[in-house]
This record gives sequence, structure tokens and C-alpha cells, in this order.
Amino acid sequence: MERLVRHFQEELDILKTRLLEMGGLAEARVRSAVQGLAERDFAQIEHVLHGDEPVNALHMEIDDRCLKLLALHQPVAADLRAVMVAVKINTDLERVGDLAVNIAEASKRYATHPPVKKLIDIPRMADIAQAMLRDALDSYVNQDIVLAQHVLNEDDKLDALKTQIFRELLTFMLQDPGTIEPSLDLILVSRHLERIGDHATNVAEDVIFLVSARDVRHHAPEADLQAN
Amino acid sequence: MERLVRHFQEELDILKTRLLEMGGLAEARVRSAVQGLAERDFAQIEHVLHGDEPVNALHMEIDDRCLKLLALHQPVAADLRAVMVAVKINTDLERVGDLAVNIAEASKRYATHPPVKKLIDIPRMADIAQAMLRDALDSYVNQDIVLAQHVLNEDDKLDALKTQIFRELLTFMLQDPGTIEPSLDLILVSRHLERIGDHATNVAEDVIFLVSARDVRHHAPEADLQAN
Repeated sequence: MERLVRHFQEELDILKTRLLEMGGLAEARVRSAVQGLAERDFAQIEHVLHGDEPVNALHMEIDDRCLKLLALHQPVAADLRAVMVAVKINTDLERVGDLAVNIAEASKRYATHPPVKKLIDIPRMADIAQAMLRDALDSYVNQDIVLAQHVLNEDDKLDALKTQIFRELLTFMLQDPGTIEPSLDLILVSRHLERIGDHATNVAEDVIFLVSARDVRHHAPEADLQAN
Repeated sequence: MERLVRHFQEELDILKTRLLEMGGLAEARVRSAVQGLAERDFAQIEHVLHGDEPVNALHMEIDDRCLKLLALHQPVAADLRAVMVAVKINTDLERVGDLAVNIAEASKRYATHPPVKKLIDIPRMADIAQAMLRDALDSYVNQDIVLAQHVLNEDDKLDALKTQIFRELLTFMLQDPGTIEPSLDLILVSRHLERIGDHATNVAEDVIFLVSARDVRHHAPEADLQAN
């Protein structure tokens, strides 16, 4: 029995490592897309547009690992929750990979117009969203509620920057209709970045649920698990 | 053993019923938000803005049911996949509920401006997205791959309407800067509706994975389940 338990923990550790790898890949793609936007770098943009295969492959692999962990080890309580949360995080990370493509699509259109302004707030949003994603994954791996709570707090910064970007671009559009089309793409990028923050928030909320539910369950009678 | 198996199937049926209920609620909220937009009905918009509690409560209840199903019955193969897919569908439906709020927020801002145009394509997008969601859930409950494939095909219609709406509104904005702000909100609504279609697509893809993986597994040696 003890051997099987250790085997489960080993498999769970591999799963966590793969989630971190996937998070790293997704994050790198977001960074690359925003760099492509800021530097009008078509090659980098195209690279993001056609480079989602590794993230998608990891998405399927991780889903498969979760299913195998459940089928072979039939974990309960905190171990079961840890796998369920991995399934959810996997979905969130795959969407982040998709959002990198969306950012690259907007960047490609944006680069066909003269630049509306020097981009400062959008790279800042990207930095914050990427850090949120990294911290959210670390909070999962280390079951760190304090770090998960920090991720939730950071979301307000993204929201404030998004609103600021919108107001500034609206002013440009009202003054010069020639800026309408490229400004729309910048607004879209800011919303894609906001959604990346939302995915990091999802992960952080799952971690808080995972860790606090386990603590509660420590004191709960087994009957609480009974399906009704 | 047979009693336990029947018990699992009964619990799975309850789970499916609850997912359908949640889908119905989420869909009603989307319909209400778009009606509020089209009819400039502030009361209806406010109702959507403050009415996400039932969907959120179902979201937590369904997650809990999935965990209990896994912990108590430790299903494998197709049954395990059915529960995993339920977890994912649950996440998608919760996001659809959130998108109804996003649509209501844009609708509330839109209603403070004179209408840009008579809304035809946005209600059409809403109808298609809602039907996709309904069909996707039905395809899950009935394990109907043909219907799931139909959902995937419908997504092109949403994409075409979104592009059409964007082009039309861009023309308005270029001609009359006074339409920029309300037009932006209509563009946002069209993108929220597109994302609802994306969630329906996610569900349909999960169903295809669920059903075809089961078929494959019928002919697969048990060794294929071994974690590596």
C-alpha cells in the first residue's frame, strides 16, 4: 500500500512539473506576442501565430495523466482534489495559449497601420498578467494560499490599466478617426491580457479551494463525503 | 457490486440533469442580457447584473457532485471520462454566466447613448450561441457525436456575423465620431457572444473526445491505461 501511495505522489509531482512547463510555454508565447506588437516584429508575430502545437500537445498529455492518475490510483480527499484542480489548471493554461494567438492576430493587424502611440501600459499589463500566472502555478505546486491570495489582489491592477488604456485610446479615436482601427486592436489586446489575468485568478481560486477544503476535511466526519 | 454500479448511473443522471439546469439558467441570462440591450430595458439589464447567484451555486454544487462521484464510486474508463467532462462543462457554463454579466455591463453603457443602429445581427448571434450551447449539452447527455459535430460547424456562422458587425460599426465610427463609444460596446457584445460559442465548442469537443475515446478503449488492451 505504501508503495502505491508513493507512486501516486511521484506521478503527481511529474504532473505538477508538466503543468509548470506548460505555464512557462504559455507565458513565453504571451511575452513574444506583446513584444511582437511593441516592436512591430512580424517574424515574432508569425512565430506565435503558428507555434501553439507544444502547448496543445502538453494540454492533451496532462489531461491524459490526470485520467490515468484517477483510474489507477483512485485517490480520495486532498489527493483527488489536487488532480481535479490540475484538470482545471490545464484548461486555463490552454486558453492562455489561445489568447497569445489572439494577441498576435491583433498585433499583426496593428502593425499594418502607423503606430497610435508608444506602448507603455500594454507591456506593463503583460508583465503583471505573466507574473500572476507564474505565481498562481507556484501557489498550486507549493499549496501556498498566501501567494494565491496575492494573485487575486493583483487583478485590480490589470483592471485599472485596462480602463486607463481604454480612456486614452478613446480620446485618440475621437480626435483622429485615422486612429480608430489600430486603437481597436490595442483595446482588444488589453482585454486579452485582462483575460490572462482572469485565468491566473481562476487557478489561484482553485488553489485556495483545494487547500482550505483539505483543512476543513481534516476535521470532518467521513459521512460528509456521502453523496445525497 | 451491481447495486453500486446502478447507484453510480443514478448519480450520473442527476449530475447530467443539474448540468442541463445550469445550462438553461446560463442561456436564459444571455437571452435576457441581449434583450435588455436591444430593448434598452434597464430593469432587465440590472436583473442580469445582480442575478448570477443561482448559476454560481449550481457551479459549486456540480463540482461537489463530481468529487463525490469520483471519491465514492472510483469510476474507470468511460464512466471516469464522463465525470471529467462534467467538471469541464461545469467550468464552461460558469463562464457563460459571467459573459452574460459582461454583456449586461456593455448594454448598460450602450443604453446611455443614442442607439447607433437597429440591432439585428447581435440578436442573431445570441440565438446561434444559445442554440449551440443547448445542442452541446444535449450532445453530452445523449453522447451524440453527430450533434456535437453540428455545434462545431455552427461556430463559423458566429465568426462571420462578428466580422460583419465589426465592419459595419467601423464604417459608422469613421463617419461619425459620436458613434465611437456606443459602437465599441456593440463590438464587445459581439465578442462576448463569440466566446459563448467558444464555450459551446469546448463542450462539443469534450463530448467527441469522451465518446470516441470510449470506442477506442473498447479495443485497447488494459496496458494502455498504465501511467508511464
